[in-house]
Amino acid sequence: MNSKSNGKIFIEPSHTLIVRLRLKRQGGNLARVIGMISKSHGLVSAMDMVSAAKDVIVRDLTIRVHDEAAGGLLIKDMRRLKGIDIVNVSDRVFLFHLGGKLEIKSRVPLKTREDLSMAYTPGVARICSAIAQRPEDAYALTMKRNSVAIVTDGTAILGLGDLGPEAALPVMEGKAILFKQFANVDAFPLCLATKDTDEIVRTVQILAPAFGGVNLEDISAPRCFEIESRLQKLLDIPVFHDDQHGTAIVVLAALFNSLRLVQKSAARLKIVMSGAGAAGLAVTRILLRAGVKNIIGFDRSGAVFQGRQEHMNPAKTEFARITNLDRFEGTIQSALRGADVFVGLSQGNLFEARHLKNMARDGIVFALANPTPEVDPQQAARYVRIVATGRSDFPNQINNALAFPGVFRGALNVRARQINEPMKLAAARALSKVVGGSELREDYIVPSIFNSRVVADVSRAVSAAATRTGSARVRQSQEAGAATALNS
Amino acid sequence: MNSKSNGKIFIEPSHTLIVRLRLKRQGGNLARVIGMISKSHGLVSAMDMVSAAKDVIVRDLTIRVHDEAAGGLLIKDMRRLKGIDIVNVSDRVFLFHLGGKLEIKSRVPLKTREDLSMAYTPGVARICSAIAQRPEDAYALTMKRNSVAIVTDGTAILGLGDLGPEAALPVMEGKAILFKQFANVDAFPLCLATKDTDEIVRTVQILAPAFGGVNLEDISAPRCFEIESRLQKLLDIPVFHDDQHGTAIVVLAALFNSLRLVQKSAARLKIVMSGAGAAGLAVTRILLRAGVKNIIGFDRSGAVFQGRQEHMNPAKTEFARITNLDRFEGTIQSALRGADVFVGLSQGNLFEARHLKNMARDGIVFALANPTPEVDPQQAARYVRIVATGRSDFPNQINNALAFPGVFRGALNVRARQINEPMKLAAARALSKVVGGSELREDYIVPSIFNSRVVADVSRAVSAAATRTGSARVRQSQEAGAATALNS
Repeated sequence: MNSKSNGKIFIEPSHTLIVRLRLKRQGGNLARVIGMISKSHGLVSAMDMVSAAKDVIVRDLTIRVHDEAAGGLLIKDMRRLKGIDIVNVSDRVFLFHLGGKLEIKSRVPLKTREDLSMAYTPGVARICSAIAQRPEDAYALTMKRNSVAIVTDGTAILGLGDLGPEAALPVMEGKAILFKQFANVDAFPLCLATKDTDEIVRTVQILAPAFGGVNLEDISAPRCFEIESRLQKLLDIPVFHDDQHGTAIVVLAALFNSLRLVQKSAARLKIVMSGAGAAGLAVTRILLRAGVKNIIGFDRSGAVFQGRQEHMNPAKTEFARITNLDRFEGTIQSALRGADVFVGLSQGNLFEARHLKNMARDGIVFALANPTPEVDPQQAARYVRIVATGRSDFPNQINNALAFPGVFRGALNVRARQINEPMKLAAARALSKVVGGSELREDYIVPSIFNSRVVADVSRAVSAAATRTGSARVRQSQEAGAATALNS
Repeated sequence: MNSKSNGKIFIEPSHTLIVRLRLKRQGGNLARVIGMISKSHGLVSAMDMVSAAKDVIVRDLTIRVHDEAAGGLLIKDMRRLKGIDIVNVSDRVFLFHLGGKLEIKSRVPLKTREDLSMAYTPGVARICSAIAQRPEDAYALTMKRNSVAIVTDGTAILGLGDLGPEAALPVMEGKAILFKQFANVDAFPLCLATKDTDEIVRTVQILAPAFGGVNLEDISAPRCFEIESRLQKLLDIPVFHDDQHGTAIVVLAALFNSLRLVQKSAARLKIVMSGAGAAGLAVTRILLRAGVKNIIGFDRSGAVFQGRQEHMNPAKTEFARITNLDRFEGTIQSALRGADVFVGLSQGNLFEARHLKNMARDGIVFALANPTPEVDPQQAARYVRIVATGRSDFPNQINNALAFPGVFRGALNVRARQINEPMKLAAARALSKVVGGSELREDYIVPSIFNSRVVADVSRAVSAAATRTGSARVRQSQEAGAATALNS
């Protein structure tokens, strides 16, 4: 769906309207509508006839437009046309969301009284007693085995900021269906009506028994760091802040493959990073673990260095401690001179592409701000060898969905106690290897999220790392064990 | 499935073993096994051949036994048989629960990049913004519309007591699949690792935004009263403690139909109630609202009356205030003299059936303790006209599952703010009317939970009562509304 029109404007399929028109059956009415749509840079992607009478035809036109505003203007213009009535306008994304995206289903039959007597009373009492005696059996006999809590407080929803728990729910539902679709994980959104760190930690702790893992999502920095690290200490199941570690895993996988292409080694790279928030810190940490030595980070106040006074917090102090060993204090543009890699995890339109021209040979640019990258990716491609973004309408989409499904699948399969650093590194390495040596190209450094090998390979690598490092409770999901309780 | 053997022993289908046997192919081995099962009062309900070789046949025998202990003894005996090897023993209820009973599914397609761009970024951002502007739209555009939190702290699990949150999970999963099967409600278990009233209240409040209702479950008295009433004040969605109100609705429905049979009026009844806990108090309240005047309640210390000193608590003080106006202080056996109705919500084998012989003509006995009723129902039937229990293997099962699915379906359909008393009364009346006048019999005073009219009729009555009393936000689920956001 890499569609683009003139220059910098990209048509996103998400901005689609379905317009029901009542057209008088006289010469040229349909043509006039279509002409108007085309003139306003809209695209008719489908047309269905709803009914036809002697004088009047009712049609549904599916129209793609640049954005919501363009859609509103187009509809306004269409209302002025003579001989044409707009019956209604539906928005495809809104229609898609009607009634929510999730449902809870039974995995067992419930058709007869006998089914009922097993699923519920009296049969279920024996399952309860068994778990009360051996809490570990909850993994075998309940949903815990396969369930992940997606926890947010709604404070950092996509690029939109603090929208509160209700408005966060569509994102968390979306995440849940990605979990299911790609990794058959049963994930459930918990959108919390509190922003208090202590309350969030305590709430998740109280809810943890039924879950096999916790995915923290869209919680603003720096609270997300404390929430994650406190929960990791309190709980005996994985706690994974996807905005940090999911991003870090995919960036590292993309970097591994980029380095294969440009034949450079991690240890000798100079990396310039824009963004010292949650994702920036996590990416920095995994890069250092992977052997990178030289990273210079920037935030809104400029270069982050040890001893800087303005706009610091514990996370940035940590960032400053592990990066920028030469205490560079200049601008991002000057830091780019001689840099091998630029990683943007900050904000759109940060600088012009021409500033990339002084990068080292075979430059690598990951401009991951969404929806608008730090630098125009098409322009950037003129100066550097590899460009990746967070967008689906460019090659090389750095998408968390390449990591979190396989990471949790792998963790759940061995009933992992945590997702530790070796597990994350293993995930990145496995993800990079999904792209075979002969397939690797400048515009194919990460696989498609629809590639089924992604979850299979990542989860296997994560399970193996969990077993190797002692995080795993079992070698594989041992469901059969509990079935033979009477077998003594 | 009303199977019974001698006297008081009932074969529950939940106690089923699947035994895999390797039998030497010589005369009479199978017959010897089957003879042994039959002698120990087991029942072979199915037999499957797994494989047959020259000398050996492997078979799976599905065997029903009275209980777990009987199963263990039978297996022990079978192991002694010559020419027969037990390969393994599986327990059907455990097999049924392997991997849990719930899964989370997507209601929308997620096959293409375009689906993904609507379900998740970038499309979902517009849904989030819309809800941030109008939080009520969460009903139309998220799972809130159809979702119920099943909340427990695991302190009063079935008849088993305080087993903790992990062991509570199988019951809550069972409840969730009943919600889905009978009323298409998406219910999710929240098993809380705290017993602190304040923490439970606060946790539910923090989690409420994503839900259209809260079903409190198996929380011990008296905390359940405070938790329910505080949450009802704090939240703008229904909070319903099923152990109280679900039971109350079904008891009242059963009483309505009993009174139609025996031609008595509620106002003139003398009711003896055993159990002054959560269910007892709720049943008492709904009976009084339905016009009953004379109820005498008993707990472990005897009659509950105003001014009693021992073993009181705020709930029992309330109970004493609204019942037993003559301050009866005698035994339950003497209270039964001249009583029209006995309602048991207490403990098994409370008294002998002969004590029922002094009840008024056409006595009604609801002996609802599970799994063993307060009085033997078969014996009781010799003295009174109508007997109901909580068991599925007797006629007239008083089962909460007759109420809660339809009650929540009806509440969700109109986005109710609460489930108020008129809604509960309407539910009871609608439930009673599912049994038509011509169908009504002593052994058919409540419909089967598999009767599809139950949820349809109860939910319609509940929605109507919600609308009448101002609890409803909408007349019916108005999903179409939000789809035309651009239609201005």
